[in-house]
Amino acid sequence: MTKKIAILPGDGIGPEITEQAARVLQALKLDIDMTTAPVGGAAYEQHGHPLPDSTLELAKNADAILFGAVGDWKYDSLPRELRPEQAILGLRKALGLFANLRPAILYPQLANASSLKPEIVAGLDILIIRELTGDIYFGQPRGVRELPDGPFKGERQGFDTMHYAESEIRRIAHVGFQAAAKRQGRLCSVDKANVLETSQFWRDIVIDVAREYPEVELSHMYVDNAAMQLVRAPKAFDVIVTGNLFGDILSDEAAMLTGSIGMLPSASLNASNQGLYEPSHGSAPDIAGQNIANPLATILSAAMLLRYSLNLPDEADRVERAVQKVLEQGLRTADIHEEGTRKVGTREMGDAVLQALA
Amino acid sequence: MTKKIAILPGDGIGPEITEQAARVLQALKLDIDMTTAPVGGAAYEQHGHPLPDSTLELAKNADAILFGAVGDWKYDSLPRELRPEQAILGLRKALGLFANLRPAILYPQLANASSLKPEIVAGLDILIIRELTGDIYFGQPRGVRELPDGPFKGERQGFDTMHYAESEIRRIAHVGFQAAAKRQGRLCSVDKANVLETSQFWRDIVIDVAREYPEVELSHMYVDNAAMQLVRAPKAFDVIVTGNLFGDILSDEAAMLTGSIGMLPSASLNASNQGLYEPSHGSAPDIAGQNIANPLATILSAAMLLRYSLNLPDEADRVERAVQKVLEQGLRTADIHEEGTRKVGTREMGDAVLQALA
Ligand SMILES: CC(C)[C@H](C(=O)O)[C@@H](O)C(=O)O
Ligand SMILES: CC(C)[C@H](C(=O)O)[C@@H](O)C(=O)O
Repeated sequence: MTKKIAILPGDGIGPEITEQAARVLQALKLDIDMTTAPVGGAAYEQHGHPLPDSTLELAKNADAILFGAVGDWKYDSLPRELRPEQAILGLRKALGLFANLRPAILYPQLANASSLKPEIVAGLDILIIRELTGDIYFGQPRGVRELPDGPFKGERQGFDTMHYAESEIRRIAHVGFQAAAKRQGRLCSVDKANVLETSQFWRDIVIDVAREYPEVELSHMYVDNAAMQLVRAPKAFDVIVTGNLFGDILSDEAAMLTGSIGMLPSASLNASNQGLYEPSHGSAPDIAGQNIANPLATILSAAMLLRYSLNLPDEADRVERAVQKVLEQGLRTADIHEEGTRKVGTREMGDAVLQALA
Repeated sequence: MTKKIAILPGDGIGPEITEQAARVLQALKLDIDMTTAPVGGAAYEQHGHPLPDSTLELAKNADAILFGAVGDWKYDSLPRELRPEQAILGLRKALGLFANLRPAILYPQLANASSLKPEIVAGLDILIIRELTGDIYFGQPRGVRELPDGPFKGERQGFDTMHYAESEIRRIAHVGFQAAAKRQGRLCSVDKANVLETSQFWRDIVIDVAREYPEVELSHMYVDNAAMQLVRAPKAFDVIVTGNLFGDILSDEAAMLTGSIGMLPSASLNASNQGLYEPSHGSAPDIAGQNIANPLATILSAAMLLRYSLNLPDEADRVERAVQKVLEQGLRTADIHEEGTRKVGTREMGDAVLQALA
């Protein structure tokens, strides 16, 4: 049966990088149907909303979504509910994309790009699994209220609610244990159980789920310590599982350890393996439309799409090997360029991956 | 008038490092009175509570508190309210210590200790100002409840409340602007205003306070981006001001960038400059009592105590210069030892600082 892929290019460099990834998917000659729709600021311009109904419907009916990036300074003054980022939050929630997989991999060819010493990061290969539809991101109540009593009586107060229900923790814990079982068998659950009730509850449930995975070694770490250990000895981790807020922070920190965030894909999955795939980097409006953005993170996101939503691991491997090959050939976009390598543009990089695939 | 200093050594290496810092304070021949009391696990053993009334009273009546460290694996199974960390939360709240100052400084002599490349961190000198008595740390309601309706009806849910009142934000913002004005004049406020109401409110208030400090350049950064930029280009920061939870994570990440957390002091101040001073590192129970812990972070915390709570900037400078001198002499405790330097124990390091002071 024909698989449906929704392409949501978004803003900034989104269109040019998704274009290259779509070319790669096309070149595989699969039975897929790709349809493009606006999202983020681009959708706001056209439809007055960052996630128009037509785009949401397309995404819901797709087997997988290839997402570029959203955001631009020029939308900063819009009310929050109309800002580009709301599209991505809306898609996560509407499709129930609760499991965010963020690999932080340092390609040997790019070891110099890291701000860390080579011996600390060479061979880095960790996977951060971030819960994506719960936590303080969506918790109610939230807002600004006037305080009726207490030490700050009569003042305004901003407030949000962090929370996790048992089954929300269970399902992401299962994703974590299963991923760890397929890798080095070590899962580190990150929380702040010494302060937060939500975290203590998270930890209790993760410990309970662990009984189903005797082959996986489970550890727990406070988020402040995790932020330190990622800097000190990132290779000590295998798989990290954590909540939405801590995962937001730690997955970005881990990505930056590699120094080549232009290379890092991500997948956001729901219970039926429908998924949204996007590069870990942002929309970089400052370099948009100049054919200098790195399309590899998006191409590698397409590989994750093949693996997780289309169940085509061989095709996923092919794409990943092709990317590996262009790196070996010494091709580099500006963000990862260094002496002795050949600087190419967005489209040329796409061409090279297509050639390597052939 | 005699100044009162409460010495709370705590657990693990706490006693041996505070001992060296107390010797340094003593050597300055000031009109001070130092009284020691148990805190953390040590207090639990003696009094059944990590923060006994007698210790709390002593702390309240002191001009400043020199705090070692608390915590030990052996208390992990205690109910949360009896665990050592509760002592530090209790002291912060009871004394209203809302402003936590965490410098991240890389001493030129220790540049190799960092896991980052020297050119990224050499000369690092940033100050993180963390709000310490609000946010999700103390927010009510919190707990575990059974859900009466909604998608997770009948399940248990862990929950916490994040919140900041206007005056809480104002007062920490003032601390941030004033600190920046005395340094390079750049303040970066870190929040998650694209997702959290508390953060949007925080940002609005910080912008309002900024009008009183036209000489300070204010910027805003999302916490995930801040976690990245600290790894990529930490020297781009001057002063960071942020909430309790984000500050917990970022201040530890920043400390670890230096690779020498055994060197980093901290101060936690209230509105009347009463303060608690402690090293940024933990209680390290694995090396406790072996005369190998680094006392310099605690000695530098004593210097901060002199500067902020006793208003003795010259004495503070003297202590900091003495620490600088022992580093120049090549003395190193095990945590910062490298070839070509002389490895010394906790007490010998204390001796050396005393000599350098003389
Ligand atoms: C844009 C923003 C709402 C989003 C998040 O915080 O989840 C982004 O930082 C991410 O990690 O995908
Ligand atoms: C021990 C813990 C409660 C504490 C905190 O989270 O504030 C510690 O991590 C710190 O930063 O002082």
